Amino acid sequence: MNSNYKAFWLKDGDLVVIDQTQLPFQIANKVLKTSADATLAIQDMTVRGAGLIGNVAAFGVYLAARETGGDLVKIKSLAAKIRGARPTAVNLMWAVDRMIGVLEKANAKQQNLEEAALQAAIAIADEDVIGSRNIGKFGSELIEAIAKTKPKGEPVNILTHCNAGWLAIVDRGSALAPIYEASDRGINVHVWVDETRPRNQGANLTAWELGQSQIPHTLIADNTGGLLMQYGKVDLCIVGTDRVTRCGDVANKIGTYLKALAAFDNDVPFYVALPSSTFDMQIADGIKEIAIETRSADEVLYMQGLQDNGQIGKVRVAPLETTSLNYGFDITPAKLVTGLITERGICEAAETAIAAMFLDLLP
Amino acid sequence: MNSNYKAFWLKDGDLVVIDQTQLPFQIANKVLKTSADATLAIQDMTVRGAGLIGNVAAFGVYLAARETGGDLVKIKSLAAKIRGARPTAVNLMWAVDRMIGVLEKANAKQQNLEEAALQAAIAIADEDVIGSRNIGKFGSELIEAIAKTKPKGEPVNILTHCNAGWLAIVDRGSALAPIYEASDRGINVHVWVDETRPRNQGANLTAWELGQSQIPHTLIADNTGGLLMQYGKVDLCIVGTDRVTRCGDVANKIGTYLKALAAFDNDVPFYVALPSSTFDMQIADGIKEIAIETRSADEVLYMQGLQDNGQIGKVRVAPLETTSLNYGFDITPAKLVTGLITERGICEAAETAIAAMFLDLLP
Repeated sequence: MNSNYKAFWLKDGDLVVIDQTQLPFQIANKVLKTSADATLAIQDMTVRGAGLIGNVAAFGVYLAARETGGDLVKIKSLAAKIRGARPTAVNLMWAVDRMIGVLEKANAKQQNLEEAALQAAIAIADEDVIGSRNIGKFGSELIEAIAKTKPKGEPVNILTHCNAGWLAIVDRGSALAPIYEASDRGINVHVWVDETRPRNQGANLTAWELGQSQIPHTLIADNTGGLLMQYGKVDLCIVGTDRVTRCGDVANKIGTYLKALAAFDNDVPFYVALPSSTFDMQIADGIKEIAIETRSADEVLYMQGLQDNGQIGKVRVAPLETTSLNYGFDITPAKLVTGLITERGICEAAETAIAAMFLDLLP
Repeated sequence: MNSNYKAFWLKDGDLVVIDQTQLPFQIANKVLKTSADATLAIQDMTVRGAGLIGNVAAFGVYLAARETGGDLVKIKSLAAKIRGARPTAVNLMWAVDRMIGVLEKANAKQQNLEEAALQAAIAIADEDVIGSRNIGKFGSELIEAIAKTKPKGEPVNILTHCNAGWLAIVDRGSALAPIYEASDRGINVHVWVDETRPRNQGANLTAWELGQSQIPHTLIADNTGGLLMQYGKVDLCIVGTDRVTRCGDVANKIGTYLKALAAFDNDVPFYVALPSSTFDMQIADGIKEIAIETRSADEVLYMQGLQDNGQIGKVRVAPLETTSLNYGFDITPAKLVTGLITERGICEAAETAIAAMFLDLLP
């Protein structure tokens, strides 16, 4: 197993993950010993991010194989629960389906299913590492091209929404991979980090990740990106995604669509970074065909953070009688997307271009 | 003095205001005894909202007249401090300038300046009451027209950003006045309330105001409005404003522009409600000519709310090393505005239409 995974690792056959609900104030791990642990960790957002959800799902199927003594029927039943843990990120379904495919073949060959599942889950993670590096390579070339147009000493200002870094996708993320790569190449970058209400993945995770790597960044309210673009303070937007249709519509964290509209209105390039496992070639129209998760109203009504006493706590931010509706994602139509940064290269967000680059993924 | 002012009133010659920084969890008042108290209350957002800032500024000039024994030179010096308390809402400058104009005339006639200032400040507030009622009347007709197109029993869904109700403008606000009026007329309305980070005026003030009047509403993260429009769940947007140029560009709470873009992209009408004192006829281009206030980074980095122990407290929502940039407003270009709801009627957001309806306000 590649030792570079930072958001999860194996220990004594169990899967250990960073508990992302406690970041940035506490770096705590959780040990997932059963497939039910994996399902819950995905549901309660101990782990989140399209790629990481796929990885934990894959290792969850391995845990299912272990706990059932390699009984394929029981594994499939447990895998179905993992697969249903969250509805929007297609990597989850993709990873579980791939694992089951491998186990069916292994079962037919009377191989050890626990060992087969472990190797298959590791293979997915290792492919993601290569994918992330390639996304970084292709995306950093965009950043480098912009850097050449800037006055000496001025950074390339990149806006991102939510977290699509190494906490979301091994080993450098999708949206942040080009930024890490550009920084490695000595390009002067500065990142506008959207807070990303209601779960604050920007404030809690992206700001923390970038801080760990000493990449200059500034946290902003989600409301702020439009004005920054009006003022010419954003050179480029890069976001991740949870699902891309074969026509290039993009499901990503709620609020992404608003930034894409502002980018379009101000001629700021808007790129979406993804491993090809995030394509859902079965569907065309993102608004009509992608199930958008609704989550607990409490995520909006309460805000978690560090209290004066040094403990992590919550405050209620709305009247006690107030209710909320909490959609997790929105759809950015392909027309607003400048391009898709994938591990195979940069692809236009359009059906023909996607089909040409990803022919092997079509149903 | 009209006894209907709810956000402020006079007591023993002092100005009493609701401390809006404590809402919705504590309804506390502050007594402003001096012009410096008024300046500070505007700066620290004890009072906020374009109209209310204008009212408190006007009464602040009255307090200046009182504390200086009616010395016009000293009044002007104190009034200049009030005028500079915040940069974006033009009602502040407008109200101070009007007060000084009145006092200069009264001084020339050797009248009592304290009494003249008091009457002038009351006149502004009383005009605002009539303005708010008329904005309500014109705006409610828009809502009524939409209601007629809806299936029986289905509400008109209205999205608003920030707070432009009676806490912001006497006596029913600007953006919320049409909603209160429509509700009075028996029209079935439901309001999507944007949380409005970083100061949470939607969660803290608008949700509370609507709750007090038992108007159905749902709090949403600022990120959510775009998806709601994609899903056809928004019939109409109405927001307030802090300044409108003679060409119809609108300065309003940061994030307004993003909602206007989404409304435009989804053919949802986007209206801006304002008293005519919010026009700044001196300027044309909102992005180039309106000074946008930057406020403390701590407004983004900390979140205030009700703690488990029943006390109002703050939590830190970002890593301790993280910094933020906190612009208070953005600009919605006139092209995205369906119309301006004013006390004189509904006006196209365009130079010729504004000039035709507000000829007397042109320089």
